This record gives sequence, C-alpha cells and structure tokens, in this order.
Amino acid sequence: MSRYWSEIVRTLTPYVPGEQPKIDGLVKLNTNECPYGPSEKVLAAIAGQNSEALRLYPDPQASALKAAIARRHGLAENQVFVGNGSDEVLAHIFMGLLRHEAPLLFPDISYSFYPVYAKLYGIATRAIPLAGDFSLRVDDYLQAGPNGGIIFANPNAPTGMPLPLAEIRRLLQGNPDSVVVVDEAYVDFGAESAVGLIAEFPQLLVVHTLSKSRALAGLRVGYAMGHADLIEALTRVKDSFNSYPLDRLAIAGAVAAIEDEVWFEATCRKVIATRERMVAGLQARGFQVLPSAANFVFAQRPGSEGAALAAGLREHKVLVRHFRAPERIAPFLRISVGTEAQTDALLAALDAILA
Amino acid sequence: MSRYWSEIVRTLTPYVPGEQPKIDGLVKLNTNECPYGPSEKVLAAIAGQNSEALRLYPDPQASALKAAIARRHGLAENQVFVGNGSDEVLAHIFMGLLRHEAPLLFPDISYSFYPVYAKLYGIATRAIPLAGDFSLRVDDYLQAGPNGGIIFANPNAPTGMPLPLAEIRRLLQGNPDSVVVVDEAYVDFGAESAVGLIAEFPQLLVVHTLSKSRALAGLRVGYAMGHADLIEALTRVKDSFNSYPLDRLAIAGAVAAIEDEVWFEATCRKVIATRERMVAGLQARGFQVLPSAANFVFAQRPGSEGAALAAGLREHKVLVRHFRAPERIAPFLRISVGTEAQTDALLAALDAILA
Repeated sequence: MSRYWSEIVRTLTPYVPGEQPKIDGLVKLNTNECPYGPSEKVLAAIAGQNSEALRLYPDPQASALKAAIARRHGLAENQVFVGNGSDEVLAHIFMGLLRHEAPLLFPDISYSFYPVYAKLYGIATRAIPLAGDFSLRVDDYLQAGPNGGIIFANPNAPTGMPLPLAEIRRLLQGNPDSVVVVDEAYVDFGAESAVGLIAEFPQLLVVHTLSKSRALAGLRVGYAMGHADLIEALTRVKDSFNSYPLDRLAIAGAVAAIEDEVWFEATCRKVIATRERMVAGLQARGFQVLPSAANFVFAQRPGSEGAALAAGLREHKVLVRHFRAPERIAPFLRISVGTEAQTDALLAALDAILA
Repeated sequence: MSRYWSEIVRTLTPYVPGEQPKIDGLVKLNTNECPYGPSEKVLAAIAGQNSEALRLYPDPQASALKAAIARRHGLAENQVFVGNGSDEVLAHIFMGLLRHEAPLLFPDISYSFYPVYAKLYGIATRAIPLAGDFSLRVDDYLQAGPNGGIIFANPNAPTGMPLPLAEIRRLLQGNPDSVVVVDEAYVDFGAESAVGLIAEFPQLLVVHTLSKSRALAGLRVGYAMGHADLIEALTRVKDSFNSYPLDRLAIAGAVAAIEDEVWFEATCRKVIATRERMVAGLQARGFQVLPSAANFVFAQRPGSEGAALAAGLREHKVLVRHFRAPERIAPFLRISVGTEAQTDALLAALDAILA
C-alpha cells in the first residue's frame, strides 16, 4: 500500500492463475492447456514472420486475423474483435459493454476472473447461485430484476457442464435490453456454440480463445463475435488502451490456427476420447464426475478431501487444480484432460494414494 | 452508438496511430520504427520458443524478462513491470497511479495518447503549454497548484527535444507528493535517462519500450521502472486485467534483445549518425529543425505548408507524419530516421517537390 496508488488499487483482489511450474517432469493437468502441440502450420507461419519485419508495427486492427475468423464462423469482419488472449477481450467487454447502473449477473460458480474485472471497473454485480446439481437455471436470470448485463461460461468453468442452445436462446429472448456474453473458451470439446444466434440477437456476444482447442495458450490470442455495434464499442476501448495488442507473430500464428480445420477436428476428437476414458477411470476409483463438455473434468470422491487429494497428487508429480472457495466446490478437483500417458499417470497416482 | 454501450464509450476519442501501409515499396518514415532489423540473437531466441511449448501458458509474471531488465539497469526485479508494449504499460499506470482528485499535468504538445488514457479512466487533466521554443519549463509544473501526477516524454514527442537530467531532478524535488512518469521511449538516441534517480525519488516511474532502439515494434514489449511500491500497484492492475500479457515468443525475444548490448549500441550509433546527416540535409533545403535527441526530427520549412509537404512526399512514395493539431505544430513534419538510402530518397523527393 502506498499513498501514490489510485484509490481503486487498494480494493483490488487480483485473479490468481493456475501454477506454471518452473520444474520439469510434472504431469501438468492444472490449467486446461491442450496436451498436444499446435498445428505445424502455425509454427511455420510464425517462423515466416520471425524476421527483419519485427522492426515494424503490426497491423493495429489485425485485419487478416479478423477476416480468417469471420470466414470460419460465417460472419462479417466488422462482427469480430480480437485481443491479447480472451482475458484481455473480456476486460474490454466489461469496460465497454457491461458497465451500467443495474448489476451484472453471473453464476456464483464460474470463471473467477469475472468478479475481478467488475471490481477493476467499478461494476456492481450479483452472483446467481447454480442449482444443487451445478446446472445453470435460466429462469433465475429472467426473474432477477433489471440487470446491466449477463455473463457466463459455456461449458461452465470449473464444472465443465454445458448449457443447451435452446436454453441460451430462451435467456436471450427474455433479456433483450442488456448484453449477454457467452464465454465459449471450452465450447469445442462438446458443447453447442451460440455463434449461430448472433444474426438474431443484437445483444449477444460470444467469446472464444485459441488457448485451449487450438493449443496456443503461449501465444495469447482470443476474440469476440457479435453485432457490429457491440464490436465497435470494443474497438473504441481498445484504441483508447493499446493500438497494437497483437504482435506480428501472434497474428500470423493465429490465422494459420484458425485455418487448419483438419488439425483442429482431429485434436478435439482425441481430447474428447481421452476425457471419456479418464472419466471412466475416475468413476472406477470412486469419484463422482460432473458431466463435462470441456477439456477438463470436475470430480469429487466421497470420503476423500479435495485439498488432500490435490496435495497427494502433487507428491506423485501430478498437478491438478483445487479451489478452496466457495465451500461447496472445496471437495472437488478440476483435472485437465492430458495425453493418454498422462491419464495413465494420473490414475496410477490415484491408485497409490488411495491404496 | 448503441444503447448497449457503457456510458464511457460514447465519450471516447480513440488514439489514431500512424499509418501501417499495406502496399510495398514505400519509404516508411512515419511511425519511428528502427530502420534496421532486430538482433539476430532475438530471432534465434524466438525460433527456440516456436515449438510444441506454445501449448503452455507463459510465465504470468515474465520473471526472466524482469530479471534481464533489472540486471541491465542496476535495479531489483521488484522494481520492474513489463507489459504488451509501453502503450499497455502506460494504460496501467494511468489506472493504477494517476487517478486522483487533482488533475494530471502533461505538456500541451506531447504523446497524444496521454489525454486518451485520461478520458478512458475518467482522470481530470491540465495541459501545460510548452514554451515558445517548444521546450518544457519545469517551473510551470511547480507553480501549477496541486496535481494528481505528472507525465511527459523525454525526449518529447513529436518535437524530439530532450529535457536535461538536472531539470528532471528539480521537478522531482519540487513535486514529492504525486507520481512523476518519464516516458523514455526515445531516450536511447541521445537523451539522459532518469533511471539513476529511482533510488532517490520514490514517486518516479520511468517507462521504456523495445519498439524503437531495440527494433521490435512488431513484438509489443515495454516496461516501467520505479520504487517497488509503484510497481506493486501496476502488478495489481495487470493481475486484474490479463494474467499473461506477454506471450512466450515475446518474452524470449525481449530477453535476448535486452542482453545484446553490442547490437544495441551499434544500432543507436548508426541512427544518430544518420539523423545528423538528415538534419544537415533538411537545413540545406531551408528547413528549421528542432534539436532532436530521438530517432526522428520535427521540422518546418518557412513558406511551405506542412500538410502540403506531407502529401507531396507521399506522391514520391515517402511517408512522414503530419499533425493538424494543435495549430502551432501544423507547419511541422515529423520524420523518422531511416537508413542512409531512405534518407537519400527523402532528400531527393524534397528536391523534386521544392524544385
């Protein structure tokens, strides 16, 4: 604390990301990265830009990337906004579209960065409890009174549970007056995307990231899609914050990633297949696993403590994520889907711990 | 304009960066990039990270880069903050350290992003006019009444004029109660850095970029240096905004850039030598050139219009930057220092226009 700080800084409770261990040899199942490296075409595209050209600023609007994303999702370029990871995209969304008199609504259990952004920008919030089975009840949002926006992740984090498209449509139909953000960071592993609803609902914004299903967490690229009016707000905020959020290497790599549909589909299929085997392995060891449409599962084992299991796994060099709060998720572990070999290592470590 | 926008968005006047032309063959002297490509060691370091490892998140605190910067400037790691270009670093500084009751002070002619940040974060400002010769008068800042912070560029942009270190010290001595930000984007081309004053003045923050003297505008890396308490404020804002602002390639490239002192010194020397030749060439053609310690010059030609000269140069495929406002700089051109050949092309184009 210092007298030089702006007042807001004193009140911030920063987000704490999962550990990025500096020691090798760990089975890293704690931050939902893709267990497979990115497409070779991505590496080639980056290598092609790793040259004298780095002395020049990138295209401030990253038009080539917006065009590639627009083509892939059947949108116009002015319906796409890109940023330095979906975290930056979300930050600009909070600033530009979710800062109103009425409170922003989001699930009490969801991506824990949402309340952090809200604090940063002085946005009133109201957490809507998930149901007892951890599902999102759309009716709760429609009956909550006036709101300044709604944001949720689909599939939700850290539960992995998807919300059916028909339910998202019902939420949009009943909430025409404020922005609804669907954070689809994990959508490619089995949930239904809301992108197809953009033409119908001018208040809908859909957020994607290249960190998960494109295996590019280390490159920092995310994007938002929605009505051109919503995108314009984000562009105005971005151009008042940082003219060039995406560097030349990231733009080139991201274009190649978006265009490599073959790599993308094969990788998502592999991750989903391993997830199903991991779920079966966990269930065979007494775990209750929430139905996951993501590249991770959320699981508890009656009779075992979540924190103790996470610590035990760490002793066996397997890193998973454990959240102490809120209390009703404290028994759970969030375990990323790894390779087949990493899954074997996880299950073997559990056998050793539970023996 | 849309009813979904946050109120602040309606009032923003985004920064407009210099043109990044999409056609080849232009002599590009409009955005102060380095005319030479980055160090080969930078390209090698990036190539070394362009691998399967991109699937993993980067180190959220970019410790390796902070350590390299700390070593170079004789500071501790907790006196260094890094970000996605100095534009992002400046944005976090405005939010975290310059948002107070009293107005922020900056020169009326300076980096035109400063008032944009202030608008974004609702910070009151007061522009202090430069003297008639475009110099910054420290006394004006000491007599301005209470302030919530002071920010200026040294050398100043777009004038290129440096402020002597003794004057910066006098400003700090007379202003102990609010943060003073010295934006040293161009300092390596002949001005005196204020980094050496950090130990003495806990309110001093010095900002650097790798976009100019390290030839990495396309990689997006900047940093701030100051008392650990100031850095902590920036880290709290950053961790409430984006956990991983620097990607793996940018971290690796930036470390190599900071460590290659030989390339750095040789390149700065070359740019300074070309600048002196360019100044002489401009003066021989009737230009008045402000004394520059930057990698650009600010020059006017009595009897010629700034806008007309810029347009004429563009017809000869030479891009320079012209600012229409404020009025007293409208006669000027800001011309980046290019290679020797680009300088010849500039002077030949001027000869053709003025003939």
